[in-house]
Amino acid sequence: MNLENLCKQAASVKYQVQKLSENEKNTILLQAANELITQSNYILTENEKDIKNGIKKGMPEGLLDRLKLTAERIEGIAEGLRQIAALSDPIGEIIEQFERPNGLYIEKCRVPMGVIGIIYEARPNVTVDAFGLCFKTGNVVILKGGSDALYSNKALVDVLQSVLSKNNVPIEALSLITDTDRETATAFMKMDQYVNLLIPRGGAGLIKSVVQNSTIPVIETGTGNCHIYVDEEADLDMAVSIIFNAKTQRIGVCNACESLVIHEKVTQNLLPRLSKKLKEKNVAFHADPLSASYIEDAIPATEEDFGKEYLDYILSVKTVSDVEEAISHINHYNTGHSEAIITKNKATADKFLREVDAACVYVNASTRFTDGFEFGFGAEIGISTQMLHARGPMGLKELTSYKYYIRGNGQIRG
Amino acid sequence: MNLENLCKQAASVKYQVQKLSENEKNTILLQAANELITQSNYILTENEKDIKNGIKKGMPEGLLDRLKLTAERIEGIAEGLRQIAALSDPIGEIIEQFERPNGLYIEKCRVPMGVIGIIYEARPNVTVDAFGLCFKTGNVVILKGGSDALYSNKALVDVLQSVLSKNNVPIEALSLITDTDRETATAFMKMDQYVNLLIPRGGAGLIKSVVQNSTIPVIETGTGNCHIYVDEEADLDMAVSIIFNAKTQRIGVCNACESLVIHEKVTQNLLPRLSKKLKEKNVAFHADPLSASYIEDAIPATEEDFGKEYLDYILSVKTVSDVEEAISHINHYNTGHSEAIITKNKATADKFLREVDAACVYVNASTRFTDGFEFGFGAEIGISTQMLHARGPMGLKELTSYKYYIRGNGQIRG
Repeated sequence: MNLENLCKQAASVKYQVQKLSENEKNTILLQAANELITQSNYILTENEKDIKNGIKKGMPEGLLDRLKLTAERIEGIAEGLRQIAALSDPIGEIIEQFERPNGLYIEKCRVPMGVIGIIYEARPNVTVDAFGLCFKTGNVVILKGGSDALYSNKALVDVLQSVLSKNNVPIEALSLITDTDRETATAFMKMDQYVNLLIPRGGAGLIKSVVQNSTIPVIETGTGNCHIYVDEEADLDMAVSIIFNAKTQRIGVCNACESLVIHEKVTQNLLPRLSKKLKEKNVAFHADPLSASYIEDAIPATEEDFGKEYLDYILSVKTVSDVEEAISHINHYNTGHSEAIITKNKATADKFLREVDAACVYVNASTRFTDGFEFGFGAEIGISTQMLHARGPMGLKELTSYKYYIRGNGQIRG
Repeated sequence: MNLENLCKQAASVKYQVQKLSENEKNTILLQAANELITQSNYILTENEKDIKNGIKKGMPEGLLDRLKLTAERIEGIAEGLRQIAALSDPIGEIIEQFERPNGLYIEKCRVPMGVIGIIYEARPNVTVDAFGLCFKTGNVVILKGGSDALYSNKALVDVLQSVLSKNNVPIEALSLITDTDRETATAFMKMDQYVNLLIPRGGAGLIKSVVQNSTIPVIETGTGNCHIYVDEEADLDMAVSIIFNAKTQRIGVCNACESLVIHEKVTQNLLPRLSKKLKEKNVAFHADPLSASYIEDAIPATEEDFGKEYLDYILSVKTVSDVEEAISHINHYNTGHSEAIITKNKATADKFLREVDAACVYVNASTRFTDGFEFGFGAEIGISTQMLHARGPMGLKELTSYKYYIRGNGQIRG
């Protein structure tokens, strides 16, 4: 279908979707979970076509693994929908209410956004997650997945649409853009007449392209050049444990630690132990001259290192002479995602919390906790790294807007 | 100064501005109010240059009036700053706090946006208002005013910067872009590296240009094609009073009523009285065939009429056969601003509140109340008509973002 028609039709059903009750939405989400499992063979057959194409194109192992579905993974995806069904529906919540001196009674009520577009790369699980989160919040969703996952995405959307249809919900509540070329992606970003919010999920290149081209309001997600600052008053055992966790527990994620900022007074005591521990996972250190002398096989850090999201077994190291310098280094190089301090000094911790400019600022904990489930929000659509609307993990509430109900008895303005 | 340098310098002082206490900010706002009055002669002399240029260019009376400053108007502008000083500072508010099962303690804390850009037309009062609201919320502001008000804006910014300077606050907390050509405006919209939020204040053309060109997150403000629906169960005296107020109390504003939607059963009783009342202000009716027969001198409404924000003594009229039709007509033509129903039936009112898609939905009150002061928020930066971040009147809170403080005692992710 023509892209503009697809968007127009999505917009045309948004008020129908907004009227669904919490029960109706949950019923559909649970049925969808079951139907994904019932239709596993179909989904796996289609996914196999994507995998074969990927192998033919020489897709790297890591990406093939992300693309691959198995019966177990489909069960996991279905379980995600069940978890979303179990979350309470934020729509209709009265966020604030107040009466004005003239008797007008004002309620601020949580409502769906309308139509949400999601542009993402070759991860079929996003197809179902994004539908689940948007549908639960009464939003229509238009998906633009990567070409590498096209067969898988079509099959998943087929199954989900069949459940919508059985429940007399217009299938346009969920659309997939099947033209996977760049021109279509760019044209989609201009559909501000029909789409209320666009969320890119993927690498820095995708996000930049959306920010540069979109006329639809965008939420930037995901890039994380996350630092851990070890203060002069840190518990060094804790520092080693947290840095090891944040750097190596999962390297390809946006909340992994990419850079160590270290007070010059603890370099000598911390760095030899830390580098020994991180060598267990073959982490390479790109270190400034002051820190390099305490690290075996350190590679000299360049200016570029400090701005880099490695997503790899590499850690940059920057020595500072006080917390002020740590904060200004972090505020210069970070991406507004997750930053941590290790310190026993409460005043230093509070200063760091206040002055570091990021969605999530940690004291004595791993940056890896920036996540919808870890925050207790449930599944998330992404981690926002911008200031507008939502910052940090975006759960159900962050996919909503609000409107004001104002009740009067004939008030006019004087 | 080069535009990019100006934006870069503004961004470079944002953390200094964020550290100012509520007291420091209020002191500066109150001093600025006094200094505007002390420097009235200078400001009026500069304003006179703009007025002379305007006359030379044949600027219409209405625009000249908006542009003109007087001692009394400067007093009003100064009073605006005093009112902003009197509002409580939202920065630092803990919006939510909760503990996770693993002992992590999470606080969601209100913080400034960072750098806010405002693009507006020839209204010098916006220069001071925008500074006051942004500064009170710890934000740096970059102003791009219209060329017609350049001398006035320069003078006002001079005075405000002198107060910043006396208080050892970097004058880059407030900048004015003095190149008033279109190319500079477009280049400014691309400064997403330095500017966190861009708010256009002005007509539909300006707003469209910002939405189409900006790579900075935008909040759309202002266009209001506002409807009043008179239900079959309306109090008709109330209907006449509210429509008269919403249409004629001030015609050039975004919350004025532009269109009457009327239940066919009340056309005969309401329209003759209403048209007689509105003729007091020479309001012209652009009416559909069903309603036109009850209105003297009605002009036939075209399709175009229903989508129009007249900002004039004109009212379009559309007859409907039930509230469903009223809602779908309004949702098709409105701009997401302010909509009202006049009815005595609570169920009909509730349906209208729920299903009409707009920032502010009224029952039995004038649409003219969509305003920061009327809502009790104090001065506003504009009325948002988009779904993302803020909807309706934007006061101080709507100029803020948040971040998460997370305190632990060594937690790592398993």
